[in-house]
Amino acid sequence: MSEEPSEPVAAAGPPSDRARLRRKPRRGFYDATTIHEILDAAIVGHVAWALDGQPYATPTNVWRQGDRLYWHASVGSRMPRAVDGRPVCVTVTHLDALVLTRSATNHSVDYRSVMALGTAHLVTDDAETDEALEALVEHLYPGRWAQLRPMTAPERTATSVLWIDLAEASAKIRSEGAHEDAGDETWPAWGGVIPLRMVRGEPEPDAFVPDGMPAPEVRLP
Amino acid sequence: MSEEPSEPVAAAGPPSDRARLRRKPRRGFYDATTIHEILDAAIVGHVAWALDGQPYATPTNVWRQGDRLYWHASVGSRMPRAVDGRPVCVTVTHLDALVLTRSATNHSVDYRSVMALGTAHLVTDDAETDEALEALVEHLYPGRWAQLRPMTAPERTATSVLWIDLAEASAKIRSEGAHEDAGDETWPAWGGVIPLRMVRGEPEPDAFVPDGMPAPEVRLP
Repeated sequence: MSEEPSEPVAAAGPPSDRARLRRKPRRGFYDATTIHEILDAAIVGHVAWALDGQPYATPTNVWRQGDRLYWHASVGSRMPRAVDGRPVCVTVTHLDALVLTRSATNHSVDYRSVMALGTAHLVTDDAETDEALEALVEHLYPGRWAQLRPMTAPERTATSVLWIDLAEASAKIRSEGAHEDAGDETWPAWGGVIPLRMVRGEPEPDAFVPDGMPAPEVRLP
Repeated sequence: MSEEPSEPVAAAGPPSDRARLRRKPRRGFYDATTIHEILDAAIVGHVAWALDGQPYATPTNVWRQGDRLYWHASVGSRMPRAVDGRPVCVTVTHLDALVLTRSATNHSVDYRSVMALGTAHLVTDDAETDEALEALVEHLYPGRWAQLRPMTAPERTATSVLWIDLAEASAKIRSEGAHEDAGDETWPAWGGVIPLRMVRGEPEPDAFVPDGMPAPEVRLP
């Protein structure tokens, strides 16, 4: 999201040609640890898919199980059937800071993102659906699944669960702060970094929560 | 992102068939005011585009000028040439809250999103490029463009600016809090809403900022 020149560094894995970062390769990471860390901090991702020649970017909860990235949709939506067995891209982006410089061009943002390319698979097995939805709940609220009213068969069939393999995923991280062109430093404008972060507000319990029951802990990006 | 039943309400405009919300139509909005408000709160969006049959969801700064939604990319990246004159989808998503219920199925998130479908146009005119980049800076930091070192011709040519018309855009808003199925209310788990929001951290001026110069104001989602 900015335009300064890049210097290649060694990547930790062998990316596919289309997953490889062509620009600013020093920002590209292909190791599982980096990719998993970014994905595991996500609440929402965007799934790119196409129907009748029109691409769509659909926001949805995403979560990882091992080497697979999962997302879900209602069985009533078009996406699950349209993408099953077809190529998709699931992208997770965490915005970390605004980067301000004295020139318009060198403005940027610090961020962490993962782009996963692969074939979408629609889960059809009941046990696998249960396991995936449990993993989603545990991803957002560790320990919560066991506290919930058990899922019913109609509830299970109302949700479509999909996944892609993470074999063709790449991470991109910018955390460099501000870079000025030589001579710009003395221009009389503010330069530097403004950090951004997602925070939890005060939990709003509904009328049925007993006195003293705390809200679940939440994982934030 | 949740699965409760929906009740149709009148939309404020005539959405196209593919832009119209098929599920939970009460969450769909097609009026310019609602769409513009969500877009104008955005720092980053995701552009869905396709190349050689592979969809991509690319994160990028987005900003609105009138009835157009703009984004940018380096001239060195594949996207600008690949999408010029072709269909894309630009999606902006603001995550507002986590919604927790006693059943797994009724968990949800409150959010505001806009999905804009249209043909991508690559800006080729210098004056239009300048105007668009000024609009980007002013979108993020009102009043800042006039304070910056003026853009040079090589800087202008290093950035590709693209846009789509907002004629085929739709907004989706969930801000309903928690809905329990009858009988679930007394299950002994926490239920309610956990608000989320993006906040600004303490600005980190670089070494060249004079004492007492404040960091620019920032628009947050």
